[in-house]
Amino acid sequence: MATTLIKNGKVISTTGVIAQDVLIDGETIVALGQPGHFAAAEAGAERVIDAAGKYVIPGGIDVHTHMELPFGGTFASDTFETGTVAAAYGGTTTILDFAVQRAGEVVQDGLAAWHAKADGNCAIDYGFHMILGDINEDSLKAMDYLVDNEGITSFKLFMAYPGVFYSDDGQILRAMQRAADNGAVIMMHAENGIAIDVLVQQALARGDTEPKHHGLTRPSVLEGEATNRAIVLAGVAGNCPLYIVHMSASEALEAVAEARHEGRNVFAETCPQYLYLTLEETLAKPGFEGAKWVCSPPIRTGHAHHQADLWKGLRMNELACVSTDHCPFCMKDQKELGVGDFSKIPNGIGSVEHRMDLIYQGVVTGDISLTRWVETCCTTPARMFGLFPRKGIIAPGSDADIVVYDPTARQTIGHATAHMNMDHSAWEGVQIAGRVDTVLSRGTVVVEGDAYVGTKGHGRYLQRGLTQYLV
Amino acid sequence: MATTLIKNGKVISTTGVIAQDVLIDGETIVALGQPGHFAAAEAGAERVIDAAGKYVIPGGIDVHTHMELPFGGTFASDTFETGTVAAAYGGTTTILDFAVQRAGEVVQDGLAAWHAKADGNCAIDYGFHMILGDINEDSLKAMDYLVDNEGITSFKLFMAYPGVFYSDDGQILRAMQRAADNGAVIMMHAENGIAIDVLVQQALARGDTEPKHHGLTRPSVLEGEATNRAIVLAGVAGNCPLYIVHMSASEALEAVAEARHEGRNVFAETCPQYLYLTLEETLAKPGFEGAKWVCSPPIRTGHAHHQADLWKGLRMNELACVSTDHCPFCMKDQKELGVGDFSKIPNGIGSVEHRMDLIYQGVVTGDISLTRWVETCCTTPARMFGLFPRKGIIAPGSDADIVVYDPTARQTIGHATAHMNMDHSAWEGVQIAGRVDTVLSRGTVVVEGDAYVGTKGHGRYLQRGLTQYLV
Amino acid sequence: MATTLIKNGKVISTTGVIAQDVLIDGETIVALGQPGHFAAAEAGAERVIDAAGKYVIPGGIDVHTHMELPFGGTFASDTFETGTVAAAYGGTTTILDFAVQRAGEVVQDGLAAWHAKADGNCAIDYGFHMILGDINEDSLKAMDYLVDNEGITSFKLFMAYPGVFYSDDGQILRAMQRAADNGAVIMMHAENGIAIDVLVQQALARGDTEPKHHGLTRPSVLEGEATNRAIVLAGVAGNCPLYIVHMSASEALEAVAEARHEGRNVFAETCPQYLYLTLEETLAKPGFEGAKWVCSPPIRTGHAHHQADLWKGLRMNELACVSTDHCPFCMKDQKELGVGDFSKIPNGIGSVEHRMDLIYQGVVTGDISLTRWVETCCTTPARMFGLFPRKGIIAPGSDADIVVYDPTARQTIGHATAHMNMDHSAWEGVQIAGRVDTVLSRGTVVVEGDAYVGTKGHGRYLQRGLTQYLV
Amino acid sequence: MATTLIKNGKVISTTGVIAQDVLIDGETIVALGQPGHFAAAEAGAERVIDAAGKYVIPGGIDVHTHMELPFGGTFASDTFETGTVAAAYGGTTTILDFAVQRAGEVVQDGLAAWHAKADGNCAIDYGFHMILGDINEDSLKAMDYLVDNEGITSFKLFMAYPGVFYSDDGQILRAMQRAADNGAVIMMHAENGIAIDVLVQQALARGDTEPKHHGLTRPSVLEGEATNRAIVLAGVAGNCPLYIVHMSASEALEAVAEARHEGRNVFAETCPQYLYLTLEETLAKPGFEGAKWVCSPPIRTGHAHHQADLWKGLRMNELACVSTDHCPFCMKDQKELGVGDFSKIPNGIGSVEHRMDLIYQGVVTGDISLTRWVETCCTTPARMFGLFPRKGIIAPGSDADIVVYDPTARQTIGHATAHMNMDHSAWEGVQIAGRVDTVLSRGTVVVEGDAYVGTKGHGRYLQRGLTQYLV
Repeated sequence: MATTLIKNGKVISTTGVIAQDVLIDGETIVALGQPGHFAAAEAGAERVIDAAGKYVIPGGIDVHTHMELPFGGTFASDTFETGTVAAAYGGTTTILDFAVQRAGEVVQDGLAAWHAKADGNCAIDYGFHMILGDINEDSLKAMDYLVDNEGITSFKLFMAYPGVFYSDDGQILRAMQRAADNGAVIMMHAENGIAIDVLVQQALARGDTEPKHHGLTRPSVLEGEATNRAIVLAGVAGNCPLYIVHMSASEALEAVAEARHEGRNVFAETCPQYLYLTLEETLAKPGFEGAKWVCSPPIRTGHAHHQADLWKGLRMNELACVSTDHCPFCMKDQKELGVGDFSKIPNGIGSVEHRMDLIYQGVVTGDISLTRWVETCCTTPARMFGLFPRKGIIAPGSDADIVVYDPTARQTIGHATAHMNMDHSAWEGVQIAGRVDTVLSRGTVVVEGDAYVGTKGHGRYLQRGLTQYLV
Repeated sequence: MATTLIKNGKVISTTGVIAQDVLIDGETIVALGQPGHFAAAEAGAERVIDAAGKYVIPGGIDVHTHMELPFGGTFASDTFETGTVAAAYGGTTTILDFAVQRAGEVVQDGLAAWHAKADGNCAIDYGFHMILGDINEDSLKAMDYLVDNEGITSFKLFMAYPGVFYSDDGQILRAMQRAADNGAVIMMHAENGIAIDVLVQQALARGDTEPKHHGLTRPSVLEGEATNRAIVLAGVAGNCPLYIVHMSASEALEAVAEARHEGRNVFAETCPQYLYLTLEETLAKPGFEGAKWVCSPPIRTGHAHHQADLWKGLRMNELACVSTDHCPFCMKDQKELGVGDFSKIPNGIGSVEHRMDLIYQGVVTGDISLTRWVETCCTTPARMFGLFPRKGIIAPGSDADIVVYDPTARQTIGHATAHMNMDHSAWEGVQIAGRVDTVLSRGTVVVEGDAYVGTKGHGRYLQRGLTQYLV
Repeated sequence: MATTLIKNGKVISTTGVIAQDVLIDGETIVALGQPGHFAAAEAGAERVIDAAGKYVIPGGIDVHTHMELPFGGTFASDTFETGTVAAAYGGTTTILDFAVQRAGEVVQDGLAAWHAKADGNCAIDYGFHMILGDINEDSLKAMDYLVDNEGITSFKLFMAYPGVFYSDDGQILRAMQRAADNGAVIMMHAENGIAIDVLVQQALARGDTEPKHHGLTRPSVLEGEATNRAIVLAGVAGNCPLYIVHMSASEALEAVAEARHEGRNVFAETCPQYLYLTLEETLAKPGFEGAKWVCSPPIRTGHAHHQADLWKGLRMNELACVSTDHCPFCMKDQKELGVGDFSKIPNGIGSVEHRMDLIYQGVVTGDISLTRWVETCCTTPARMFGLFPRKGIIAPGSDADIVVYDPTARQTIGHATAHMNMDHSAWEGVQIAGRVDTVLSRGTVVVEGDAYVGTKGHGRYLQRGLTQYLV
Repeated sequence: MATTLIKNGKVISTTGVIAQDVLIDGETIVALGQPGHFAAAEAGAERVIDAAGKYVIPGGIDVHTHMELPFGGTFASDTFETGTVAAAYGGTTTILDFAVQRAGEVVQDGLAAWHAKADGNCAIDYGFHMILGDINEDSLKAMDYLVDNEGITSFKLFMAYPGVFYSDDGQILRAMQRAADNGAVIMMHAENGIAIDVLVQQALARGDTEPKHHGLTRPSVLEGEATNRAIVLAGVAGNCPLYIVHMSASEALEAVAEARHEGRNVFAETCPQYLYLTLEETLAKPGFEGAKWVCSPPIRTGHAHHQADLWKGLRMNELACVSTDHCPFCMKDQKELGVGDFSKIPNGIGSVEHRMDLIYQGVVTGDISLTRWVETCCTTPARMFGLFPRKGIIAPGSDADIVVYDPTARQTIGHATAHMNMDHSAWEGVQIAGRVDTVLSRGTVVVEGDAYVGTKGHGRYLQRGLTQYLV
């Protein structure tokens, strides 16, 4: 039996940082010991990784990616192959992507299409949430079926994008009732898309066509409003678990914090772009360059308000997770579809490779602790979406998805060195303290220093259980 | 010139209670004097009313009535003639009714239809708000036209009643933008009708068809949600004046209070039914009797929560006005349309005759002051809807719309003695301390003790100005 | 009988602005009429004031002044004679000053001392609140006595100034219980003086002795804390009426607004210095000049936070009144006591002459309405402190305390033209749109244009009733 | 070397429940393994504990006990010997007791006195917080000394008990400033003792002397007020870590939750008595029996308000810890000191033996999860007070303080079977699902089934580090 020993490292859990050695047998962590405890086993180990001076953390789990997503007449530029390799480089060993049921489509057909894209192509393990683009009797029944048979226990709805993914409040209510019944999590894109569409059409009619108007026509109060509405509807539906995706706005955070203060099963994630970037420095760049940062919700104005609140929310567990909403588009031929009309710019930013590094900077600045870094990027994602304790923790019996992270290294993010299938980087020039050193996926080293040493198809589909993160 | 002197009474304004004599010349109050000041004029007066021991208050203004409203295949049972006579009996000298633009209709045609109903038939003065049932380019232009030319400066939208009066958030936003521009007030029926319709259909499908399910399928949180949404949309629209009609729920009051605490132009009214009645004692009566109290929002559960909050809101000016939402239907042939299906019961309660008496009971119990009684029922309605100082105050130059109110009288409300065109009373048996003694409309006595002494067609249409109640 | 007619003006009440003529007979307003209504009486009038183009408002009531107050080894520099003349110049026709019971003193003796200062010296009417500097069984009994026999119905306590006026929470609670019983209003200086004294001593020990450290050692959160504590204690005491004086801080406003949202009998005033001035522009001036603006609570930092909130609070009736906390000290020999030790600078600013003008600027900028100007500066003060309807309103039967205000005039405030007994002005150079034109006190013209034409001793002591401003 | 293996159990951490075997060598956990992983080691183990069907949890940490506390002329009835044995029976393997500096005393002398009481007497490990009863320059210096040299990193102050432990706000501020500087945690008894003393004296003067008046004279709003004040002072002091002890009231929880929502370093604990007992069922018992439950803050009224909020607070991490505030007094000769005068009843309830069992009932009812049980009772206490990872977690390198807990057992609490040195039980007759099976303290079995098998003096004094629970 092939064993691996990771020794001399500091293992980070949600509870603390403890010097421990980790013993792996095959795909699984089999024991943790005091430093040196496995001296006898070390001799017979196939591989010994000396993590002295380094952190040993559970592999990152990015619960919000969109590989190969069809959007606005094109496709997200990362395939499951390229995207999962990039994820691995960045210390992420599990992604949860979104299978899509389009309007008029049978849910299971949509799921099958996504399995076809991912099957045999992934460098790391993966699972699916299901986007319900058409709530009706059949799709409600399909929710039960997917929970019971397909390991899909989370369903995403949209209050934005009328005519595309949009569900009205009645459809949302019905899906939430079903989730309250079968235990699934409802994930919500919470922006008032109906009102936003009016603002977008008015802006275009005025000739305000540049990328920055993407941001200006999606005011943060409309994210707050939709978030509040989703919370109320979830209550009416019997308090189904509700998870607000890609939160960007203080108003939305306020609504979630109030619900949590009332003891509600309400959760939220944010993304690196909302924690670091400002509209002024991105969308508002001259010419069309701002298109690189067109995503929804949009990047907000200033550092003081929304960003400070989001960091505080991460610290105080008002925000549960950090995901990327990875949805990359190249400028050429893709983002450029929106030259002269910001509403035609494909929405999305590519970050799957940088999440662990970017959020670690919050540790460096003191905005969050080491334990919250691991909790928000690795452990809570696993618990929230039914992967725990298989994933998200370094514990006996868990999959050996492990990242050795070197806090002393330094790097600069840039398109030239990144591995996502893009022609630019939204993070060009950002300096990072810390760096992924070694990445194991189910016991196999897939990244070693600068090199990807994994194999296509190593990643397996994850049948997930119900959320374990009910309050 | 015909003069009238009201002497020895206590005149109540929003500021206080002051013993004053009131001198009327023709239709107008011309002077106020210390008691006895008009001794010389008294000799030549056509009429002298001795108000010793009585309150002298501005005529009541009921800003929310629906005479002859077509609803659910029938019509509200009071005509403008019967309804305004009943109003006069109860000390209300002005009503603001709702003209209706139906879907597909030209706004001005809807207005004309309502003028045709009211013209020459009213016992007291009246004006119109305009219900916009179809927001489009033409109706938005019509808003400007009505403000500029028709004396209609308030427009009502519905977040409830999908397929009937419902506007979506985009339509609401566009109407609010127009109001922010032309100064009109947006009046909002704030219930999430899309979600409610799901609950209603589910209840009917379960066989829950009795009247009480009307209440149970319209939870108060969905009124709170819609109220919050309306407030947010009004902010996005440029902070147009927003007036929430017929507020029934603590959650909605909370949203309005928060907005006001932030300095927003947000106002609300409540109605007597929400201040006094409970679901348990009305809608939940055995058999079909509960139908008498079917209105929307529904009468809420219990006295402790919503009612106590609403009284507090009235006291602290979180609630600006008390209207009736008078929309009477007989049980026979009308309410009975909903036997076996609560959703087919015409929505509405008749109270136009009892508002001044009912709210005066709040003075008796100490829940509000005399000045707040007059402010919420007479003065603020005038200021809110552009009738001040013509109406709503006893001041030189104002219309002589005056009520002499006897606080020592006692009466019991009942169908047998009321004057609304109904076959029952929602207030049967309620005991009232206080009673309308004499009512003047523009200087003419129209009610004297138990007798209506006015004339059909005395009431004139009121061209209104813009709201004077901006904060 | 000597009659006066004020004609052609616009009379402002709390409810609206109405063109009316005002007829005065002796000391009293006897009638209000439509413009021209008193044409017959005009012929026989002793005096006719043409107020065309001008506002006619109730005389201002400044409920917070400290004439001749002993403080820090000196006395406030205005006597009742000089201070009331200055007040009259500024359109204030009533002041409520504070009689003081010092520690160890019999309450009635303190009151007698203040009567001795004021008696026969005042240009305008005046009353007293009573400062209780020593709460014990005798002073609690004295509260009842003053309410019943002396027309003193409001008592001020201090959570600041340990060793001087300070009461501990037990003393406060006992005084509040008494007030809940006898109907008096408790006025509170709400700053945590015990904590502040520590900060002051630490600053002085560090050598931070300049005037700006007066502000820096009294952080706004300690005003918020004390305000919250006072509100809680008033609740424990049986919900006695509580009136927070000279509010300067957003945190304190928040506490009052929350209490009011819960329906509590809690009120507050602010002062012009907190609405307009900033620490940066006043206390922080180089050298000792900042001493001119040393007052407590201190002038706060910046315009954006506290000031914007206070204006909003005035607009929304979270703040009930504007007073001055007039407590003037000359720089020479008085403020200079604190050279080298800010804690020895006598606390106070002189503004009694400028309140009506300064707050009118809020009308000019649109921060408040004309009616709120009159309500916060004239009418609510009268109702709050038991002077209504004798004072605070232009109504038949009320004292003829009237100001004719010219909104078209322009003036610049400065020491050279002001009439307070000071050697500088805290408002030097401030430009004012509007100006007091004519001032009547009980029917007598006391200011006419630039000239004081009143007489010493015209002002009478006001026996006050209980507050009429309970919610 | 003596090794122990605990096998087949489910190990509970703050993150989840995972089947693991635990290998102990001497006093220390040396490794965790997949079930069966230590088959080889098992053979040589000194002891093998089969935990099949049982939970394996970190030993409980009760951070709030008062053994032998002098109070009201008597002493808490448990010695360190009897109290720690009782604790061990209940699955608590560490207590943090309070050494006391009395007024006028040198801090170090107070500490020495407590060491003398505990030294050599404890069945389990123990540490001390220091009560500062006299804040002055010397005691502030002593804070630094104790942090640096004595392993005491938390200091308790009292806003209650004037004349005994009470500190005024200035003293509190100074101690907090010192804590902000040296990293210590300030623990606060947050009740407004000055106001309470007035209410107590008034009650006694009225003849309201029975035990229930202890509760009625300490209204929950005065706990809320003091909590808010402590939070504000901690902010002024530079945001020192603040930990509110024995929280009982919704108002206090609200203040803490708000502070946490603002990102503040504010924490709180509650106790079993506030989660389960009501004033009606305890203090208000006829005669003097209520004295058994006299503690401060008092047990509150009803289940619906405070208790529901506290459970919600535990669930949502608004409350960090559950301690007991164990402070037992016998009825005879102790509680009886207060016959005829509730204010003389020694304050305190004995619960140290029952905490783990009582809070586990919240898991049984679904109010909290298994992980929150362990987090609030074991892990957070360790992190909060600088004992982690030595205590509070089952991890390699940690002390082998372990409880094997049998969720299937049933027991009934009663004085007859309990081991605290009391003549009654505050929990008489309470039925418990679950039971402590085996308890290890630093690798030594001290409780085995119903038997205490430990030795006096086994427990060692714990030098603690700084809190690790900063947010």
